[in-house]
Amino acid sequence: MHILILGAAGMIGRKLVDRLVSDGRLGDQAVTQLTLADVIAAPSPAGFAGTVDSRAVDLSSDHVAADLVAGRPDVIFHLAAIVSGEAEADLETGYRVNLDGTRSLFDAIRLQGAESGWRPRVVFSSSNAVFGGPLPGVIGDDYVVTPQTSYGTQKLIGELLLADYSRRHIFDGIGLRLPTICVRPGKPNRAASSFFSGIIREPLAGQEAILPVADTVRHWMTSPRSAIGFLLHAATLDLARVGERPNLTMPGLSVTVAEQIEALRRIAGDRTVALIRREPDPVIERIVGGWAQAFEAGQARALGFTAETRFDDIIQAHIDDELGGHIG
Amino acid sequence: MHILILGAAGMIGRKLVDRLVSDGRLGDQAVTQLTLADVIAAPSPAGFAGTVDSRAVDLSSDHVAADLVAGRPDVIFHLAAIVSGEAEADLETGYRVNLDGTRSLFDAIRLQGAESGWRPRVVFSSSNAVFGGPLPGVIGDDYVVTPQTSYGTQKLIGELLLADYSRRHIFDGIGLRLPTICVRPGKPNRAASSFFSGIIREPLAGQEAILPVADTVRHWMTSPRSAIGFLLHAATLDLARVGERPNLTMPGLSVTVAEQIEALRRIAGDRTVALIRREPDPVIERIVGGWAQAFEAGQARALGFTAETRFDDIIQAHIDDELGGHIG
Repeated sequence: MHILILGAAGMIGRKLVDRLVSDGRLGDQAVTQLTLADVIAAPSPAGFAGTVDSRAVDLSSDHVAADLVAGRPDVIFHLAAIVSGEAEADLETGYRVNLDGTRSLFDAIRLQGAESGWRPRVVFSSSNAVFGGPLPGVIGDDYVVTPQTSYGTQKLIGELLLADYSRRHIFDGIGLRLPTICVRPGKPNRAASSFFSGIIREPLAGQEAILPVADTVRHWMTSPRSAIGFLLHAATLDLARVGERPNLTMPGLSVTVAEQIEALRRIAGDRTVALIRREPDPVIERIVGGWAQAFEAGQARALGFTAETRFDDIIQAHIDDELGGHIG
Repeated sequence: MHILILGAAGMIGRKLVDRLVSDGRLGDQAVTQLTLADVIAAPSPAGFAGTVDSRAVDLSSDHVAADLVAGRPDVIFHLAAIVSGEAEADLETGYRVNLDGTRSLFDAIRLQGAESGWRPRVVFSSSNAVFGGPLPGVIGDDYVVTPQTSYGTQKLIGELLLADYSRRHIFDGIGLRLPTICVRPGKPNRAASSFFSGIIREPLAGQEAILPVADTVRHWMTSPRSAIGFLLHAATLDLARVGERPNLTMPGLSVTVAEQIEALRRIAGDRTVALIRREPDPVIERIVGGWAQAFEAGQARALGFTAETRFDDIIQAHIDDELGGHIG
């Protein structure tokens, strides 16, 4: 089985590659070939017996998409995107990469398939940024999508193209709206959501973390491990069960900051929790205040997508997957 | 006031031009200049004292959008589109005109505005084709948009671009999802919805009309006169009242075929109704069966958009506006 991953050098991309290599298979088929694409070359995975072709390319440039699909991969994971902050700051780059890049991929598949009859599975990572306020406390699968950022707009357009091209049998597409990933490994970044991971990750590493919002703030999260699980499940799921709406809000855990902190206390004790320093930031409070707090995700759950149901399990996944199973 | 109309040669475009010319003003400002664009040149309106520039152009061709906005019109009505059937039959043409054409217009406004600070009102005609089944009997403003045609997909992408560019203050945009227009003047066409007008229009002209569906079929309609009213109201409305969701489902009348026929009987008598010939067409039954039957349109109604509330008034509008006020 040949798998193409766009956005392979990102956090989710790298974890997906690692998982495919360690599993050695996707569903009931052996993984024999990986094509990895990103704006920087993704590292070749260690311990993989098959063929790896890692390319540093810009999907929105001419011919790149056509070249990538020329090898007719069986499954395509499209994870590549300009992130939210950059898409907001730079309209042209955001639309070029997130809209034109996605469309050029889908059209390259269309043209390649028209010649050869090839019809791959396409798994597209979308975002809860497709939703915009006013939002109910728990958002159902039938709630209107009205993005209020350019990133959310571009992701929703990607979803719509995926649904239309799938309806036309150009490829077998499925789009996944991923929750905020927590605990995100690595360093803090400038995303407004960074602290949701930081207040767990830094204290577990013996470092201070800043909490910029009140601990009544509620948010929708899942572990990196669950996110990879969603992608693999989407790649092998019988799409006849999905029906006419192939863009799915993924399950997650709705949790307050206070609940995050109490779970950390149960697992790592008061001294670890004491490393969280409260430093309110009205800008971050305001941004986060507009975000979705919880989703029903009923369609995705019925299709077998599963996520953590306790924040303790999200912390434990971080300890197991990033810290070698024990607190440092 | 300078007004640009894209799609000026279509049924709605021509009626809009006629109305602007007969009113002589839009809101409290005199209409002094009309730029009319379509793939065929729109006729110059009779009795207009101002300047008319009628152009036969393809919006999706290079430089066309930039040329059209170079004169910095105050209001832009974007009614141009490849219709549903053609967009479904020809993927490339549909996306080129309905998506790329709309985007090139919006980007031309962006670039012109960045130079000059100009920020026009943009009124975009969208469609209830942005909705796709399963649908509730009455669709609320918060119901999810999941188009099931390429036309609906392209219209929804236009809505999303309009909302994002408006949020960024590139222009002041408002999108209107128009009901099925009834009674549509002119000849029957090959649209699956054609009979909703045909069973009124043809009998009133003393001609036979075919009814291909059961008279329990329910549909969402408004008169051409109301549709023009929506466009004019949208062009002058205070957009601060609209808020963050500028794409509005327009009000209409939810009516069954049986109710249409009874209204025709009240107005024109049994002999006219006898000209309707029942000839069931399973293909049309199936297509129409998937369409929306009724909308709340609560946001639009609260903003002052109004439509007929009795089908008798829709027939009377046709008699007044197309038949000189009396039945032939």
